[in-house]
Amino acid sequence: MEALKTRILNEGQNLGRGILKIDSFLNHQLDAELMEAVGSEIARQFSHTNPTRIVTAEVSGIVPAIMAGKALGNIPVVYARKHKPITMMEPVYIDAAPSHTKGGEVMLMISPEFLHASDRVLIVDDFLASGRTIDALARIVQNSGAVLVGIAAVVEKTFEGGRTALAHWNVPVFAAATITDMSDGKIVLA
Amino acid sequence: MEALKTRILNEGQNLGRGILKIDSFLNHQLDAELMEAVGSEIARQFSHTNPTRIVTAEVSGIVPAIMAGKALGNIPVVYARKHKPITMMEPVYIDAAPSHTKGGEVMLMISPEFLHASDRVLIVDDFLASGRTIDALARIVQNSGAVLVGIAAVVEKTFEGGRTALAHWNVPVFAAATITDMSDGKIVLA
Repeated sequence: MEALKTRILNEGQNLGRGILKIDSFLNHQLDAELMEAVGSEIARQFSHTNPTRIVTAEVSGIVPAIMAGKALGNIPVVYARKHKPITMMEPVYIDAAPSHTKGGEVMLMISPEFLHASDRVLIVDDFLASGRTIDALARIVQNSGAVLVGIAAVVEKTFEGGRTALAHWNVPVFAAATITDMSDGKIVLA
Repeated sequence: MEALKTRILNEGQNLGRGILKIDSFLNHQLDAELMEAVGSEIARQFSHTNPTRIVTAEVSGIVPAIMAGKALGNIPVVYARKHKPITMMEPVYIDAAPSHTKGGEVMLMISPEFLHASDRVLIVDDFLASGRTIDALARIVQNSGAVLVGIAAVVEKTFEGGRTALAHWNVPVFAAATITDMSDGKIVLA
C-alpha cells in the first residue's frame, strides 16, 4: 500500500533496537481514512478465506481490525484484553506473549462468548515483528476449536523473523507495509 | 439512537453496582456498523462546533472516537494512553482518573505532539458515568491550551451524576443512549 509506505517514510521514527514509532497515525494518534484503506486492503486479501470473525489484541490492533471487519461485511471483531475487566467473570481463553514495547509479558484473554468452534478466524494486528503476540492469539483460536484462516498486519518487520515463526500455522500471512531493514537508523521498505 | 437502545436492551447485562456489561458490541467484541452509526450521530451533533481533533482514552473509547473522526471529515483522533509505551519518550500531558471497572486509579497520558493550543477538541468516550475519566481528559485539553468544544459518550448513566460533574466545562454534552435506572437488576433507557 503506497499511501501507508509514504506515511511510514515521512513520519516514522527509528528509535533503535527495531522499534518503529508511528504514533502519528497508528499508535497514539489515528488517521481514520488511512486505517480504513488498510482495512479494505486486508479484506481484499482475505475475503476468499471466508472469515466469520476477526481476532485482535488491545490496543493498537483494534482500529485496523474494526476497519477490516467492516470491509469484510461487518463480521464481528473481538479484541483480546490484557487486563481483566470486572465484566469478564466467566472462564476465558488465556495465553501469554512477551511485550516488545512495554517489557515483560502480557496476558491475552478472550471470552468464549465471542469465539466459537464454528468460527473461521482472521487475526489482525498492528505489527508483525517476532510474531509472538500473533502466535499467542493463534493458540487461543486453536484452543477454542475455531479454524484460523489467515494473519494480517499493518506493518511487518521482516528482520525479526515473525513470518517464519508463524509458518507452522500454514495460513496466508499479509502485511500492508513491509520493512526489511532498520539497522543504523534506516527505515527501508520493501 | 434506537438501534443502540435495542442492542443494550437485548444484550446488556446489569452486573449490579451500576456496572453494565455490553461486551457483545462495545467492550470486548465490536460491531463496526453500529459503531459507525454512533460515530455519525456524534458528528451530526457536534459538526457545528468545528472540532479539529478528537481526544479519547484507551481502550473502549477508541472505536466510537475513530468513527466520529471519520464522520467529521477525517479529523485526527488521539487516544490517551494508560500505560507508557517505549515510544513515548518526551514530556507528556498527564492526569489521573479512578477506574470504575478495574479498581484503583489510572493515569491518562497524551503527547504534546498530538494536542496543540490551536486545536478545538471534542472528547469522545464509551461511557459517561461519574464523569471522572472525561474530566481528566478535559483537564489535559485545558492544560494544552486547546479549546474544549464538546463531550460525547456512547452510553450515559444519568444516576452516576457525570453530566452535573462536567457542567463546569460549559460545553454541550451528548450521549447516544441514556440509562436512567439500574437499580434492582433493571436497565431503564430514556
